[in-house]
Amino acid sequence: MTPPSDAPGSAEAPVLAVDIGGTKLAAALVGPDGRVTASGRVPTPNEPGVDGEELWRTLEALLGKLVADAGDPPLAGVGVGCGGPMTWPAAEVSPLNIPAWRGFPLRARLRARYPGLPVRIHNDAICVAVGEHWRGAGRGHDDVLGMVVSTGVGGGLILGGRLVNGASGNAGHIGHVIVDPGGPPCACGGRGCLEAVARGPGLVAWAREQGWRRGDGATTGVELAADARGGDPVAVAAMRRAGRALGIAIASATHLCDLQVVAIGGGVSQTGSLLFEPLDEAFDTHARMDFARRVRIVPAALGQTAGLVGAAALVFAQDRYWSAG
Amino acid sequence: MTPPSDAPGSAEAPVLAVDIGGTKLAAALVGPDGRVTASGRVPTPNEPGVDGEELWRTLEALLGKLVADAGDPPLAGVGVGCGGPMTWPAAEVSPLNIPAWRGFPLRARLRARYPGLPVRIHNDAICVAVGEHWRGAGRGHDDVLGMVVSTGVGGGLILGGRLVNGASGNAGHIGHVIVDPGGPPCACGGRGCLEAVARGPGLVAWAREQGWRRGDGATTGVELAADARGGDPVAVAAMRRAGRALGIAIASATHLCDLQVVAIGGGVSQTGSLLFEPLDEAFDTHARMDFARRVRIVPAALGQTAGLVGAAALVFAQDRYWSAG
Repeated sequence: MTPPSDAPGSAEAPVLAVDIGGTKLAAALVGPDGRVTASGRVPTPNEPGVDGEELWRTLEALLGKLVADAGDPPLAGVGVGCGGPMTWPAAEVSPLNIPAWRGFPLRARLRARYPGLPVRIHNDAICVAVGEHWRGAGRGHDDVLGMVVSTGVGGGLILGGRLVNGASGNAGHIGHVIVDPGGPPCACGGRGCLEAVARGPGLVAWAREQGWRRGDGATTGVELAADARGGDPVAVAAMRRAGRALGIAIASATHLCDLQVVAIGGGVSQTGSLLFEPLDEAFDTHARMDFARRVRIVPAALGQTAGLVGAAALVFAQDRYWSAG
Repeated sequence: MTPPSDAPGSAEAPVLAVDIGGTKLAAALVGPDGRVTASGRVPTPNEPGVDGEELWRTLEALLGKLVADAGDPPLAGVGVGCGGPMTWPAAEVSPLNIPAWRGFPLRARLRARYPGLPVRIHNDAICVAVGEHWRGAGRGHDDVLGMVVSTGVGGGLILGGRLVNGASGNAGHIGHVIVDPGGPPCACGGRGCLEAVARGPGLVAWAREQGWRRGDGATTGVELAADARGGDPVAVAAMRRAGRALGIAIASATHLCDLQVVAIGGGVSQTGSLLFEPLDEAFDTHARMDFARRVRIVPAALGQTAGLVGAAALVFAQDRYWSAG
């Protein structure tokens, strides 16, 4: 093994990778091979009344402690996945589920905190897709859609081996592909989006309308998925509904982008065949052309670390995943 | 003006551009500025029983005469748009509406006929999109969807300033984005595709079901569009139906790819506001996020020559439009 170099930015130096969500702040040191060598997390201070500076100090403390505990290694850079929307690449962030940050200058703050290092920030779902392409289920393929099906439905698009950013860094919004034009209203203001149908809370709302109740009063997608695995007919029907919507959206995306692999992660996707069987069935109904039928639709491979690994790849594999300044 | 150079492939030499469709074979000499300096066309020999070699000889004669009549100028290359499907980039073509060619080795034949010149072939709708990006409605923008709405619905996708080919050269199939999962069956074998709803013959079929009849017995999209302009309520409703489907598909594509411009060409698109008003209305209903609302949806600018201009661009602007060997 090559001895570690002391030079900042050397090939052996890890990236400080960060994942910012409404529930937790996670950070890790990720090596050039995609391995996590140290990690930490804290709950996101997200109570009403928390101000943006307090949230920033919590994040700064998490990062400082992680790097210090690892012996202050030289860093190759800082890579961050954060909930959208944000301006991109400037990354003034306004995460929907973190009200304390509205137009918060996250990239500028991190640059000031880590001077001389590249700091790169992208949408959290894009980081998951990048992680799955770099070291996960999409590895070795040039045309990949990575998806996260959870409280929301997000994604990222790699075409011709490179991350697609689109005009404003917003490419990959598979959650707002329309699967049912007359369907339920979506939080985006539209109607019938994949996210409106297939996100966890959307499934729960639908299941409750159909009479789904639990003795323990639980009302989240996790419990709904558990009941589906246990054979509850309404819960199974909710998963079918989600799977069908996913199959339709993936057929549309495959026709438009001629994909090789679609990797699906996130909590809802962990329902396994209860989700993937109706998904495959709907895809099979709607995707009949030879080129589309060659796509492989698979569970994501990296689990919870995908976003951190992808955030690191924004630095390590900038030729593929970072086209901005 | 710079005097023309004699060297083959010089900057001033035109591309021999070719557009192969079920109705006509068209060819042109296109300069590096995108201007057509000479052109010709013949009806496609497409009667039942025509064999592939006869069709090839007709094409070869058209091209030979065009170049000879222009004084046998040196050529920069040969660029071709042809109906799909085809293998790509080898371009063994099997155009749906030209039964005489099934796996016909068009690229190999043209290479043998024009030795030493680059020969590049892509889907005809992709050539239209490339033409609109290079010299038409998408010029100067990095993220563009070009569409053709006619007997079929096709398209091509330019992202980050480059043509997206996808895994097998089939990216851009906007006609098979699903707009109505329970909708009419599509020629592709699927259901509810944009093409199934919005292609000319689809509109006519729908209008006839609703009682549309003309005294002259005409049954094509051209007459349906004319009746819509004349105020026939069923014909107007057919255009609304097409516009709505287009608006939904474009909203999906914009969310997935974060587009700047969508340029719509082809016969059906010439209906003007009868098509674009319901299109804009449906887009407005389904595309509510800021980034999506910035997209401009416009008529194509180049008209009938877009495909030839785009075929020429496969040679002239290979850094943007040709990534294969």
